[in-house]
Amino acid sequence: MSLTKNEFDAHFRCTLDSCGKTYPLSDVIYTCEDDGELLTVEHDLEKLRKISAKEWMDRFDLRFRSQTFPFQSGVWGKKEWVLPNIENENIVTSGEGGTHLYNAERWAKDLGLDGLYIKQCGISHTGSFKDLGMTVLVSQVKQMIADGVPIKAVACASTGDTSAALASYAAKAGIPALIFLPANKVSTAQLIQPVSNGAKVLALDTDFDGCMAIVKEVTKEKSIYLANSMNSLRIEGQKTISVEITQQLGWEVPDWVVIPGGNLGNVSALGMGFEMMKELGLINKLPRILLAQAKNASPLYESYKSGFTKFESVVAQKTLASAIQIGDPVSVKKAIRVLKKFDGVVEVATEEELADAAARGDRYGLYNDPHTGVALAALLKSIEKGTIHRKQKVVVISTANGLKFTEFKVNYHEGKIMGTNASLHNGIISCPANIDAVLKVLGNELSTHK
Amino acid sequence: MSLTKNEFDAHFRCTLDSCGKTYPLSDVIYTCEDDGELLTVEHDLEKLRKISAKEWMDRFDLRFRSQTFPFQSGVWGKKEWVLPNIENENIVTSGEGGTHLYNAERWAKDLGLDGLYIKQCGISHTGSFKDLGMTVLVSQVKQMIADGVPIKAVACASTGDTSAALASYAAKAGIPALIFLPANKVSTAQLIQPVSNGAKVLALDTDFDGCMAIVKEVTKEKSIYLANSMNSLRIEGQKTISVEITQQLGWEVPDWVVIPGGNLGNVSALGMGFEMMKELGLINKLPRILLAQAKNASPLYESYKSGFTKFESVVAQKTLASAIQIGDPVSVKKAIRVLKKFDGVVEVATEEELADAAARGDRYGLYNDPHTGVALAALLKSIEKGTIHRKQKVVVISTANGLKFTEFKVNYHEGKIMGTNASLHNGIISCPANIDAVLKVLGNELSTHK
Repeated sequence: MSLTKNEFDAHFRCTLDSCGKTYPLSDVIYTCEDDGELLTVEHDLEKLRKISAKEWMDRFDLRFRSQTFPFQSGVWGKKEWVLPNIENENIVTSGEGGTHLYNAERWAKDLGLDGLYIKQCGISHTGSFKDLGMTVLVSQVKQMIADGVPIKAVACASTGDTSAALASYAAKAGIPALIFLPANKVSTAQLIQPVSNGAKVLALDTDFDGCMAIVKEVTKEKSIYLANSMNSLRIEGQKTISVEITQQLGWEVPDWVVIPGGNLGNVSALGMGFEMMKELGLINKLPRILLAQAKNASPLYESYKSGFTKFESVVAQKTLASAIQIGDPVSVKKAIRVLKKFDGVVEVATEEELADAAARGDRYGLYNDPHTGVALAALLKSIEKGTIHRKQKVVVISTANGLKFTEFKVNYHEGKIMGTNASLHNGIISCPANIDAVLKVLGNELSTHK
Repeated sequence: MSLTKNEFDAHFRCTLDSCGKTYPLSDVIYTCEDDGELLTVEHDLEKLRKISAKEWMDRFDLRFRSQTFPFQSGVWGKKEWVLPNIENENIVTSGEGGTHLYNAERWAKDLGLDGLYIKQCGISHTGSFKDLGMTVLVSQVKQMIADGVPIKAVACASTGDTSAALASYAAKAGIPALIFLPANKVSTAQLIQPVSNGAKVLALDTDFDGCMAIVKEVTKEKSIYLANSMNSLRIEGQKTISVEITQQLGWEVPDWVVIPGGNLGNVSALGMGFEMMKELGLINKLPRILLAQAKNASPLYESYKSGFTKFESVVAQKTLASAIQIGDPVSVKKAIRVLKKFDGVVEVATEEELADAAARGDRYGLYNDPHTGVALAALLKSIEKGTIHRKQKVVVISTANGLKFTEFKVNYHEGKIMGTNASLHNGIISCPANIDAVLKVLGNELSTHK
């Protein structure tokens, strides 16, 4: 279905309520010119209301995994809610979104939950949920280039999933990508994705904040477009996850959504998706949100304990959940607004708790990254505390692919992560290659199978 | 939609034409009792023909976008063609199938092809196409257990993707899994998936063939069910890939399908899927098949050069495409039959060719494993030779996730794979953390961007 140009409308708006200045999406701009606050993408809801809730749901269902470009993408199946006026020919998609909602029925039964679903965002083109936002940002850049805006490259400071997603989508579009990272602080394994996708990867003799400062400086030159999460275009793609989850549950809102949080852009996006569905009448209630932080990087948890009356950034300590090792989150204001609105709870997980929870999930057939481990640990603790009641329906957002974390898995099962639950460690049993010896081992093992 | 029991029918049949003995799918059997030949699953086509081709296509399209269990799975959306009489409550699914058909438009343009599509089978629950077959095997086992067949565990000999898939699906179902592997010949990284999923992993002081011998011995005890590829149930899931590809192209058959081959079960499955569609009138032509082997393990290529008049197994040499490092393929007879019927071609790729082709694909936004590299290299060589014509439409089967092959990627870009194309190597540029130095580097880099 092709959309009439300007049938719908969206623009940037300053997130400072007392300002609210707006800018067209075609501007190369990331913060408000007047007050330097972050921008958000605002949609003309009146225009969107011309389509009934029922029609939106039918349209989204019809497009889900459709074979018609660009609707094979879970993000672009919601095009009018994302970037309504982009031309299809400028959409850069790798089939992001539409990820499986894994039904962990056996685990739900053991926990006494009415339902436990894992949204597998890591089973994605570059192996993380970052694809959802990057398809939107890179597509908008391609549109701007087609419209004559002189953009030569896209750039970000990153040490992980963001650079992988940016490099891959830029390579698909044929747009140069620049990645800035701190020298000698990032393993080659983390970098090999953007390197493979042909990005220009610069190692700077500074830390991550130093790289962020440089990329901001570089992108003042408007021919280089900033792709870090302060660019609110990415949120527009990420928010479709809320619509997808609801859709995959037959347009039923779960009782809880559990999500790990570091820079907090993802929880802001999660909230925006549910709010937009409620505004447009697709749903009539909101889920509660359980925001999970690694104890070693939990400034929002401290703020939550004070009823969000104050927020103080911290120096994040090292955590296995490296992508959320952030002490001064960019999107904290947006996140607190969402948590207040969604009757949110913040919980923390220690290193042992996140590692054990990830391993527990693996025993039910999952293959979780440590960030999903943080979310699962928060879930288990919240059930223990009675915050999450048995008989409730819970969706956990899995943010990245476990295949990116082989070392984490190996260390866990070799008992190298201190204080973890040895009963979850699994080893390799040596045995002579003769049938009697094998059957003897199996006899013991099968009789003791947990 | 619930199916009437026995509205459709399928059973095992001996692949030896002169025998053709049949067995029910509920039998614990892998080869013919009379002649020891492999079995195949045969469907009652007359019963399937009661539904028109149009109705099948509409039904499959409707289910492809479905949120209704078990049809979220690309495999179970074709349930009547796979295991028509299994009860839904016994289906063990992790959302396998429905993988994205990646449109490499920029690469197709550079190659002068009418279309180049990569079927992303590695963007899957356990990171390889093995999920397609394992969901069927484990579901059938769960059904048999429910029907009172005394099965205590599922077992396989494997060093890679097969064990990962078996362990994950068994864990989801709560069925014990046994993995047999050669001691000191497999890296921990390859094993960490089944270990994490709680399988009993036995390291035997022998080689892979020795492990295969032991697992065959162990599974003579019918309470332990064999999950290796000689079990033809897995083919039933794998063949749905042909239906999906055609469906994703709007029910249009591509000119060519390129697929890497080792044990050759996957090409047999590919052929069976297309043949079944033609038999039932969904398509009226077959694609040509390009079977790609690593030069270091290419017995089928030698047979192809002799017009398939003879086949001799070889001792496979070491290749980066480790999963197809096989000199004596189990499914060679089935594969040769398919290649003859599909006007097939066999091509080989050297280690340099497969590594360069994988890296070339990455420059267009992909992230290929070495096996997909073999297929891409065969594609490029076949275009050079004029076997594949420009203006044709090609689908390449990507069998596994590049995230499983970090070392391969790192070695490539560090120039450690001898004889590869240095112009495709990408490095990390060191730079002082000051804006002038950075801009100077960028000036040079952007102006020389390929």
